[in-house]
Amino acid sequence: MITVDTLIHARWIIPVEPASVTLEHHSLAITKGRIVDILPTARARQQYHSDNIKELPSHALLPGLINCHTHAAMTLMRGIADDLPLQEWLTEHIWPLEQKWMNTAFVNDGTELAIAEMIRGGTTCFNDMYFFPDITAQQAIKHGIRASIGLIVIDFPTVWGEHAEDYIAKGLAVHEQYQPHELISTCFAPHAPYTVSDIPLQTIHAQAQRLGIPVHIHVHETLHEVDEAQQQKGKRPLQRLHELGLVNPSLLAVHATQLMPEEIALLARQGAHLIHCPESNLKLASGFCPVARCLEAGVNVALGTDGAASNNDLDMFGEMRTAALLGKAVAQDASALAAMTVLRMATINGATALGLADEIGSLTIGKAADVIAINFDTLEAQPLYCPISHIVYATGRHQVSNVWIAGNHVLNDYRLTTFDLSALATQTQKWQALLSQ
Amino acid sequence: MITVDTLIHARWIIPVEPASVTLEHHSLAITKGRIVDILPTARARQQYHSDNIKELPSHALLPGLINCHTHAAMTLMRGIADDLPLQEWLTEHIWPLEQKWMNTAFVNDGTELAIAEMIRGGTTCFNDMYFFPDITAQQAIKHGIRASIGLIVIDFPTVWGEHAEDYIAKGLAVHEQYQPHELISTCFAPHAPYTVSDIPLQTIHAQAQRLGIPVHIHVHETLHEVDEAQQQKGKRPLQRLHELGLVNPSLLAVHATQLMPEEIALLARQGAHLIHCPESNLKLASGFCPVARCLEAGVNVALGTDGAASNNDLDMFGEMRTAALLGKAVAQDASALAAMTVLRMATINGATALGLADEIGSLTIGKAADVIAINFDTLEAQPLYCPISHIVYATGRHQVSNVWIAGNHVLNDYRLTTFDLSALATQTQKWQALLSQ
Repeated sequence: MITVDTLIHARWIIPVEPASVTLEHHSLAITKGRIVDILPTARARQQYHSDNIKELPSHALLPGLINCHTHAAMTLMRGIADDLPLQEWLTEHIWPLEQKWMNTAFVNDGTELAIAEMIRGGTTCFNDMYFFPDITAQQAIKHGIRASIGLIVIDFPTVWGEHAEDYIAKGLAVHEQYQPHELISTCFAPHAPYTVSDIPLQTIHAQAQRLGIPVHIHVHETLHEVDEAQQQKGKRPLQRLHELGLVNPSLLAVHATQLMPEEIALLARQGAHLIHCPESNLKLASGFCPVARCLEAGVNVALGTDGAASNNDLDMFGEMRTAALLGKAVAQDASALAAMTVLRMATINGATALGLADEIGSLTIGKAADVIAINFDTLEAQPLYCPISHIVYATGRHQVSNVWIAGNHVLNDYRLTTFDLSALATQTQKWQALLSQ
Repeated sequence: MITVDTLIHARWIIPVEPASVTLEHHSLAITKGRIVDILPTARARQQYHSDNIKELPSHALLPGLINCHTHAAMTLMRGIADDLPLQEWLTEHIWPLEQKWMNTAFVNDGTELAIAEMIRGGTTCFNDMYFFPDITAQQAIKHGIRASIGLIVIDFPTVWGEHAEDYIAKGLAVHEQYQPHELISTCFAPHAPYTVSDIPLQTIHAQAQRLGIPVHIHVHETLHEVDEAQQQKGKRPLQRLHELGLVNPSLLAVHATQLMPEEIALLARQGAHLIHCPESNLKLASGFCPVARCLEAGVNVALGTDGAASNNDLDMFGEMRTAALLGKAVAQDASALAAMTVLRMATINGATALGLADEIGSLTIGKAADVIAINFDTLEAQPLYCPISHIVYATGRHQVSNVWIAGNHVLNDYRLTTFDLSALATQTQKWQALLSQ
């Protein structure tokens, strides 16, 4: 008998790589935070011993979901301003509230709430874009979730930075502070082409290449953005980013609801990644990202929830479902964005976009043990002909029963192991009272 | 002290009528299946006595949701054939399975599973379209859910009927059998313009007028349907229905993804109702119903999940959320289909479409006590600035804690009171094994 740290016996294992495989009555062994074996349960019971054995007889194990675009701290503004156009929502509600309330405590407490919601919903890694990224990293480490920390850059001053160069310098300091860390990676996060000038974008490009980290930016979110750029700069934002050298395998282009065929070809040719946020795009009426055409062209497409201020949740199961349903209708093809395609968008494609595909994104021997279990023992999941179909089309995040991140058991039978929920509620209510003023 | 059957003390009550009202710390009193009072809790504790008192300190009470279009028995085919175009899905998968397996036991068992799912998800009334409608009615009565039983008519033979006249005769017999019944109403349910000929449609129209019951039909579900009708009959299906007299306040036009401006005007002028099934339309890539334009024109729009074979659930919370998000994007206006508008679609508009607005659809003194409670005491619902926003944008059906239908407590602290869940699971697994053959 070989001793392992954790041994999980599951009804199904969906490793994601190879695609479309569903293993029945298989087990997964974890040691030192890594997956060391995946094998039939009958053999696992003979070969392995562990003091931590988890029996999951009605569950599917799959790689943890990767939320490739969010603003975690904004969870404190969940539902504070709905049913408004993007510009009015941003300039008359969100930005004034941030101007008034955003500080280290806000980021600390909002991110803490977001991490609790994400872990409970099966998200094991998130790619963030917000002020005080050092605080976001601290919260991620405190609660044991993996994070890609966006080093935000914007031309105008906030309490976090004075001007673009200042944001870049502060971002580089955060990068230095947290590299290397088992759970933390970093990326540059220039807010958008319309809020970051050419010179800082060039600096970001050079620094990102030097450090080998991604660049994560909102781009072509709305027709208004594209039209305004054409009027002011005589070119579409993606073209401008390309001329500045940023359209390359380090780029995470978030939203991209406005894409001409040659722009899809450009993203594919340059190996840039598209981060699709379907619920945010719908709720803000930003437009429809042509996801099926991007996939056909060979673009790597991952998924993000965007912030809870515009979604209004951080639910990657909901986002998978919306991506699948919407992608078919936009493509006018019910066979587009099949369940497995969308599950890959939420896992391995996200890992690839973040430059972490060697570490996470699939249940593969040698990768980090970022693993989630979905309990199908509920009448809403019956009958069950295909677990992959149910994950995308019939499962809710409340069916996530267990989550391991780097082998740590952060959700155990629906209970968060790294949170004091009562303190979290009190803290959140305090902010609710303040922001309601 | 006045004695009432049931007294519910809630943190919030959202009566739906009047619109946009949220009552805080209010109570609802029920006697003989009807709402007899809604008043501040402080006063309710002084005025009313009950042996059944429910304290709901973190919950919102609202009218039960009304699912205006489903095929309940098809829940046994949940997820059996995904990611396929509508015609292939229907003709190569669903219809052959029905040909082989559909019988009274199938309808009985599938409807039972569907009713369990609907009650757990806060649906208190469903409008059905399927074979053996008498069995559907029996299951609804057995489990205490309100149902509008669709008297299905189709030109071709099935085990339920031989030809259109036979279906009509059998439907009339079902109508006679269940009228009057506290929980059961009926409507005609001709399948679609392309599967029911002019003569039976005329008969249905005449009988529906005589009995004062609605007519519930799939119409303009896809562009293919409309194009084919124009080729074969020289007119669009809605025009044909209008010429046959069916476009009137009794009509429930289901799907309607293909609507020209003059057709929207026709529906509005004639007082016909539109049943929007956004998730089914997306999943089958049927098209985008122009809901905001219909609402602007004055059309009464209600919501349906469609069957679980094409959705793959019977989740009206998910359907509200999808309707709100999608409706904004289709209208290119983030202020379209605001949260309260969509909550009305799922409640009072559904009651109006079914001809039941005097009985259900709002928490109003004198109406039937079809009441649901949503528990907001979960971190995913924090912070909470507006309960109506959270119901549509941030709540899952698993937060439904209590359901009363006609005053009967059919879901009590998340437990179904009229089901043997173990027997239901065994029964469902039996069908899963058969249908997998």
